[in-house]
Amino acid sequence: MDMKEISANRSFEGWHKQFEHQSECLQCNMRFAIYLPPQLFSALAESTAKVPVLYWLSGLTCTDENFMQKAGAQRMAAELGIAIVAPDTSPRGEGVPDDPQGSYDLGLGAGFYVNATQPPWQTHYKMYDYVVHELPDLIEQHFPVTRQRALAGHSMGGHGALSIGLKHPERYTSISAFSPITNPLQCPWGRKAFRAYLGDDEKQWAMYDSCSLMANSHPDQRLTILIDQGENDPFLEEQLKPEAIQKVARECDYPLVLRRHEGYDHSYYFIASFIDDHFRFHAKHIFG
Amino acid sequence: MDMKEISANRSFEGWHKQFEHQSECLQCNMRFAIYLPPQLFSALAESTAKVPVLYWLSGLTCTDENFMQKAGAQRMAAELGIAIVAPDTSPRGEGVPDDPQGSYDLGLGAGFYVNATQPPWQTHYKMYDYVVHELPDLIEQHFPVTRQRALAGHSMGGHGALSIGLKHPERYTSISAFSPITNPLQCPWGRKAFRAYLGDDEKQWAMYDSCSLMANSHPDQRLTILIDQGENDPFLEEQLKPEAIQKVARECDYPLVLRRHEGYDHSYYFIASFIDDHFRFHAKHIFG
Repeated sequence: MDMKEISANRSFEGWHKQFEHQSECLQCNMRFAIYLPPQLFSALAESTAKVPVLYWLSGLTCTDENFMQKAGAQRMAAELGIAIVAPDTSPRGEGVPDDPQGSYDLGLGAGFYVNATQPPWQTHYKMYDYVVHELPDLIEQHFPVTRQRALAGHSMGGHGALSIGLKHPERYTSISAFSPITNPLQCPWGRKAFRAYLGDDEKQWAMYDSCSLMANSHPDQRLTILIDQGENDPFLEEQLKPEAIQKVARECDYPLVLRRHEGYDHSYYFIASFIDDHFRFHAKHIFG
Repeated sequence: MDMKEISANRSFEGWHKQFEHQSECLQCNMRFAIYLPPQLFSALAESTAKVPVLYWLSGLTCTDENFMQKAGAQRMAAELGIAIVAPDTSPRGEGVPDDPQGSYDLGLGAGFYVNATQPPWQTHYKMYDYVVHELPDLIEQHFPVTRQRALAGHSMGGHGALSIGLKHPERYTSISAFSPITNPLQCPWGRKAFRAYLGDDEKQWAMYDSCSLMANSHPDQRLTILIDQGENDPFLEEQLKPEAIQKVARECDYPLVLRRHEGYDHSYYFIASFIDDHFRFHAKHIFG
């Protein structure tokens, strides 16, 4: 797999870099960002040094840049020795279809971390396969990382982190999310996207719904989940529904920590305020 | 003076807000951002609580948003109990002239923190007066802040912080800058802007040149200066010239700490990596 470095910035004694590569499963050129912490570069680092990776899945309209520029995550990643990988939120480029209505919640920037089965989406919109398989394969082939993968995201990317982590507990160490769409089967964003990408048969949707996945999770294979939610989030009641996943967690005794924060909204100002806690949470599960 | 709140985000238990107001000296509507730390809001805070302010002056093409979104500064501001105020980098709006050539280094987004005397700039481009007088007057009238003012900036804003702080040691506690234009009299960005805003008489330029101001500073009225500069900054040699101000500081025994950082560039990834040090530096001078 060919990969091209397109930018590099020194950051907290490590490096933030952007790469482009031709994605097989998305059939387009994709960009991702990676933060490589100083443990890989210090004079004392062994040439065989490897670090774990936190995969960050972003929300609607985002690219790899939002989290890397606005979350202030590199400081704690550098301190703990954890790499960060931030993919884009959909396939991009010539020939990749977009919503003809140009809405922000379908098509470009809105891949919803599913494998689309419906035209015109089914050729390129395979973000589920990209995030679960192709991207980590690429990262683990090209960078000095272990296979310890933490999974986190925001909003639509919080849905991605929860649903993927719940489905693949064997692939990750721990899951966290800010302001996630917890129950896409029951909210306008989720229903619109799932109908378009997956068709009218709602039974096909459940495999991407975190509440359904949690309810059916095997009690012996459960990753701890941390969710932070702002109480002043304009999408809280209609789209995000943290009560829904909290109810499922209680019913099936799932290890979920849901924190609700008075006054905080849906923005990166919220994420930046608590991102250190998420890194510490994942570090506890990675390093024990 | 009328002021209108146009956004508010909770951030590190404090608040980030944007305001608009009609600027008298710039003769246009201006936006600024303010971060108010949690010491003003906690249950234990007295109703008369006041905090000092760090004024951040941004670089070419920036608005109030770049620093607030990308520097990761709120965490340390919250910890230390320091407010942050980030003005725009030029007058804006209908009737405010821009460079007819549309270049990024003159006109909108490029006020250079001077009082323009030349047409077509002299009506609106009075960023020096705005930053030194009108904005702090407005802030101190409307917010619970002390008159302890720290001054910092980046690139063109580093030039602003150095030149204004050197000229007005009585108004500030301390000065810091990332990648500042230290000697605008002798670099292309500075010469182009000063010629346009101030005219052909170079004697008029010296009052805004940090090297000249430092050379003429009174030994009994000197603020300590911290400068951080990346060695991989693409503007280092032609535009920024940290050696120039270091030479002056040595010659006149000025308290300047210049740190050069291998591998770092001109971006906010650099600023974010060292912003905590700047807050600690200013806190030392504010709180003693």
